Amino acid sequence: MSIHTPQRILVAPSGFKESLSAEAVAQAIAAGVRRVIPGVQVDEYPVPDGGEGTAAALAAATGGELIALRVTGPVGDPVEAQWARLGGHASGTAVVEMASAAGLRLVPRDRRDPGATTTRGVGELIAAALDAGVERIVVGCGDSGTSDGGAGALEALGARILDRDGVPLAAGGRHLGEAVHLDLTGLHPRIGEVEIVLACNIHNVLCGPRGVARVFGPQKGATPQQVEQLAEALDVWAALLEEQSPFGAAMDVRTGAGTGASGGLGAGLAAVLGARLAPRFEVLLDSGLLPEPLDELMSGADLVITAEGAIDFQTPRGKVPAEIAMRARVAGVPVLGIAGSLGVGAPAVHDIGIDAIASIITVPMPLEEAVEHGEALLRDAAERSMRMVLLGSAMSARAA
Amino acid sequence: MSIHTPQRILVAPSGFKESLSAEAVAQAIAAGVRRVIPGVQVDEYPVPDGGEGTAAALAAATGGELIALRVTGPVGDPVEAQWARLGGHASGTAVVEMASAAGLRLVPRDRRDPGATTTRGVGELIAAALDAGVERIVVGCGDSGTSDGGAGALEALGARILDRDGVPLAAGGRHLGEAVHLDLTGLHPRIGEVEIVLACNIHNVLCGPRGVARVFGPQKGATPQQVEQLAEALDVWAALLEEQSPFGAAMDVRTGAGTGASGGLGAGLAAVLGARLAPRFEVLLDSGLLPEPLDELMSGADLVITAEGAIDFQTPRGKVPAEIAMRARVAGVPVLGIAGSLGVGAPAVHDIGIDAIASIITVPMPLEEAVEHGEALLRDAAERSMRMVLLGSAMSARAA
Repeated sequence: MSIHTPQRILVAPSGFKESLSAEAVAQAIAAGVRRVIPGVQVDEYPVPDGGEGTAAALAAATGGELIALRVTGPVGDPVEAQWARLGGHASGTAVVEMASAAGLRLVPRDRRDPGATTTRGVGELIAAALDAGVERIVVGCGDSGTSDGGAGALEALGARILDRDGVPLAAGGRHLGEAVHLDLTGLHPRIGEVEIVLACNIHNVLCGPRGVARVFGPQKGATPQQVEQLAEALDVWAALLEEQSPFGAAMDVRTGAGTGASGGLGAGLAAVLGARLAPRFEVLLDSGLLPEPLDELMSGADLVITAEGAIDFQTPRGKVPAEIAMRARVAGVPVLGIAGSLGVGAPAVHDIGIDAIASIITVPMPLEEAVEHGEALLRDAAERSMRMVLLGSAMSARAA
Repeated sequence: MSIHTPQRILVAPSGFKESLSAEAVAQAIAAGVRRVIPGVQVDEYPVPDGGEGTAAALAAATGGELIALRVTGPVGDPVEAQWARLGGHASGTAVVEMASAAGLRLVPRDRRDPGATTTRGVGELIAAALDAGVERIVVGCGDSGTSDGGAGALEALGARILDRDGVPLAAGGRHLGEAVHLDLTGLHPRIGEVEIVLACNIHNVLCGPRGVARVFGPQKGATPQQVEQLAEALDVWAALLEEQSPFGAAMDVRTGAGTGASGGLGAGLAAVLGARLAPRFEVLLDSGLLPEPLDELMSGADLVITAEGAIDFQTPRGKVPAEIAMRARVAGVPVLGIAGSLGVGAPAVHDIGIDAIASIITVPMPLEEAVEHGEALLRDAAERSMRMVLLGSAMSARAA
């Protein structure tokens, strides 16, 4: 038997947060692979995860456009956000990336209080897409810096949330404890005409012990006391949505799948607008947004390479490499994972179908250096990994 | 075809300088390999390179002993050195590791002047071995901090090097310019009874443009002016050896192979004592010192794993992984190289037969951390590498 050189390799990575887009990651890996096997067919398939970079990735993949808009940021100051009007087969669809208007990165470190931040800017982006006449709006959740139950977004779309005196609430989730009345008479007129889908982590729920305040509050900067205050406020908000919103009574606002997406944006948009809460990779990979179906490319590949900024104990919990590994396992294709860094618990990814992992780091170096040279390091890591895979192939050939 | 799991793996690494012995490196790699393939036969073959750790490694491999001795250090202060009395099939052989008595590490950074340091301690170790009645002395060269042409070692063995007034020279290579007369009447009486072999880098020569002063002087701490002064002094020393030493006339003292080993220790011991200058791996691996012949283990292996503290542009220049790769190429066995760090020019090792390389570094970290956790990082790197090799094997199996 001769050494088997792979004919087709699928490169399906996530972006490296705050460093490289998924497109740049895919390109660098493909370049490293081609150094070792010049003639190989490499399919680059940057994988959007709903968070930062999702709108840009989908716009690029469909030949659509990014539309910049100045919106209200999470702490009230204006921010430069954007939404995507997709092109090609997906025209008529808008992608609103919530992180673009209300992401954690937009909240200054000294103002990280999830009880105070607002999703108003997300609503402003949705309103702009509605005004532009789109038929479908995909809202990418992830990397959010808010926990306002979607209240800010709904207000930007014309809803009024009033206290017992009929006065609109101040911005921020913690004031939702005072919410008594929901006035939807001023809602954007096109709301009923469009399909709104949230691409979310459906494991996130609004209330209870696994609710957003308790699970995500601390990492968004809340003190233990603020967490409890926020949890109580979101309980009041959930009750109000169930009683007074058009879709609230028919759903489990408190603990339904995905209600906790983006700090409760899921609950608010589902209950008030009838938005559908769907698993993010189902929406982003299987609903026809991207021109080529991932699973088809995968079944034709000899090898799948995925990547993430950090592979660690969190990776199996629904990160891009975990999703890719799940699909590759179905297709029976081996999976190699490349990471900016291999953190605590990284070997656990072998249990979810990632056969082998590699780090881009080659020498002791500070983080800044790794980030600065990320692309070159990634190219080299892909080259090294391919050489090792081919070594295994050669070893097999020799033994046979 | 099923996935080919290797049956026998040869682990033949160098030590990681100032961090892990070759034995510790081999053990860590073997442990990582066994995590992935529990039943595999792993032959651990720590490879001595003549430098630091060589005496200890050979003593351990033969069931011999290390004998501690307080000797004159390279800057004159006493140091705790050691020589090995080998056991088993190699009993009767002593190993003197020159770095143990005159290594660069023993020269304080603020006193790194190769014109001033001495190999006297090396001679004291050889004398102790002679006194102990050994029949063969292997001198491991490498990691030296001296450039005295072996003058100090010869004096410790009873030679007298005199200036034109008949006064013994001061210690240090730079004084060799004043050498006029060599008095060997007091030489150790057992010198003629033993075989002395230097395990050296035979590319190193004593004089000329590629001589030790010019090639190694700067890295041993000499200024450009000191380099030239030293080169001139070693020219005088070479002429004296050719004229007055028993073996000098029959050899090319100035540019013969290995004459520059350990700052000219090669030239001095060869010309005066009749020591043989031999390629270090020929001596250390092929002359029967180690109980098992490396090449036999290699030809039975499915895979060879080698390792070095740093794999970089210097690796192909006769470092342990280069030697292992050369032998593995002859045997037709694939070679994987693991490094503490992959430095500039590392991919050049593919040209000398190392099929794939990996670094132990997994996340951005300072050097101290990499050194502190070296063993665990190495184990993990071996595990990752094996998983990637098996992935390649699986990929082949799938395609076949």
